[in-house]
Amino acid sequence: MKISIIGVGLIGGSIALKLRQKGIADFIYGIDNSNEHLNEALDLNIIDAKADLEYGIKNSDLIILAIPVDAARKLLPAVLDLVSENQTVMDAGSTKAGIVKSVKDHPKRSRFVAFHPMWGTENSGPKSAISESFSGKAGVICNKEESAEDALQQVEKIVESLDMHLIYMNAEDHDLHTAYISHISHITSYALANTVLEKEREEETIFQLASSGFSSTVRLAKSHPEMWVPIFKQNKENVLDVLNEHISQLRKFKSALEKENYEYLGELISNANKIRGILDK
Amino acid sequence: MKISIIGVGLIGGSIALKLRQKGIADFIYGIDNSNEHLNEALDLNIIDAKADLEYGIKNSDLIILAIPVDAARKLLPAVLDLVSENQTVMDAGSTKAGIVKSVKDHPKRSRFVAFHPMWGTENSGPKSAISESFSGKAGVICNKEESAEDALQQVEKIVESLDMHLIYMNAEDHDLHTAYISHISHITSYALANTVLEKEREEETIFQLASSGFSSTVRLAKSHPEMWVPIFKQNKENVLDVLNEHISQLRKFKSALEKENYEYLGELISNANKIRGILDK
Repeated sequence: MKISIIGVGLIGGSIALKLRQKGIADFIYGIDNSNEHLNEALDLNIIDAKADLEYGIKNSDLIILAIPVDAARKLLPAVLDLVSENQTVMDAGSTKAGIVKSVKDHPKRSRFVAFHPMWGTENSGPKSAISESFSGKAGVICNKEESAEDALQQVEKIVESLDMHLIYMNAEDHDLHTAYISHISHITSYALANTVLEKEREEETIFQLASSGFSSTVRLAKSHPEMWVPIFKQNKENVLDVLNEHISQLRKFKSALEKENYEYLGELISNANKIRGILDK
Repeated sequence: MKISIIGVGLIGGSIALKLRQKGIADFIYGIDNSNEHLNEALDLNIIDAKADLEYGIKNSDLIILAIPVDAARKLLPAVLDLVSENQTVMDAGSTKAGIVKSVKDHPKRSRFVAFHPMWGTENSGPKSAISESFSGKAGVICNKEESAEDALQQVEKIVESLDMHLIYMNAEDHDLHTAYISHISHITSYALANTVLEKEREEETIFQLASSGFSSTVRLAKSHPEMWVPIFKQNKENVLDVLNEHISQLRKFKSALEKENYEYLGELISNANKIRGILDK
């Protein structure tokens, strides 16, 4: 199969590496605004050739969009304009309602499959790509009834090749759930980093004392705004809703401490401990 | 050297394993309220024998307190009552001002060295103990001028044997810095877990969608209240101060989203990104 990857960064690069390793991809075109990233992707054997959008699409069976969600939403209609009835387009974005809406009435809507691999790191660029990234993680396909049967099957095969477990979900539900599970984690991590940077002026002390607990909580705060501002923008309502709840949960800890109600503090912590049973099933 | 470990859990057990491996400990007594933990520690070769407090102390060169900070603060004066001028006592607690204050005027104060290894996991009990836990992490000794020279040197040797890098700090400063670097991470993680548990009633969805990002941010939320309530209690003022700052940082994200000020949102994220330069020195 010939594949075009639009956006040869962390996600696009990781998908490319894995599909080549699995023997799914015979030839991979890389399409990217950054010529530097394209050259890196060539050097790393992530892609076989650079291409412009029209050439890449024309010569591929499958086109994978792996660019920030606002750019993907803008570009997808133009990509669908260029494909025929035997080509498939999929994306890999962290929000789904917006992109699905952007092509709702497109005559070639059925060639598109909305996809979100639930994996990422705080790093970006082709050099961060890892072939084993997706193994064991959730791969979500949204609004499958809007895709043609053959396009859907092709993407299902891709998800399987990435060693992900497949979940089907409505795009609206997806955006709600990912606000809880993924987007809010990033905001708390960013806010935590800003708290420490604001309060702890001695950088050397942060560096020296930083424990594994701190590093793991603040890891996501290294993630770039180019990727995350568009996600928060597209999922604004859900993220605000969860953020308000999160602030009110933090206020409970504040109140327990202020009132020296350590029994209540213990209850709040015991409740939080329940996440162990859910995550470590 | 003969050592008594009071509290054969995650921290006490990990210290014991490492000191035995390094040939520092010839014989280790375990002292613990939980007979189950003592038996586990025996089975795991963490300790050589169970002992009661008096017997263990009487027969040891070094006594290590590794129990929750409120219990340690209460027990330390009684432990010092029992030691002679050629024995050393150290603790391993996450707050230092309170315990240092509890023995400030004790006639044998100089036999005590206040210590905090900047390492921990969300797990507890002797089964969680790992000998390589501390390698490369910070080991903080507080108020060293209040300890006798020989006691200090003995603990410095222990810290070195744990492969930690040694930092000296005033107990008050320690509690301030750890509020930023460690304690607030736990509160945000607990609050995040409670947010998700409150908003996401479908446990199966949490489990299925949970990404590595979520798992790493919420990992600390598995930590037990028995350890953490006393830490927050003893470091209340600092923790409240940092918690207030953290809530105000979260409000900036909320405000940026509500006002759809995505430039400001990007600035908040770019500022948070600076943590990368500090952590990855």
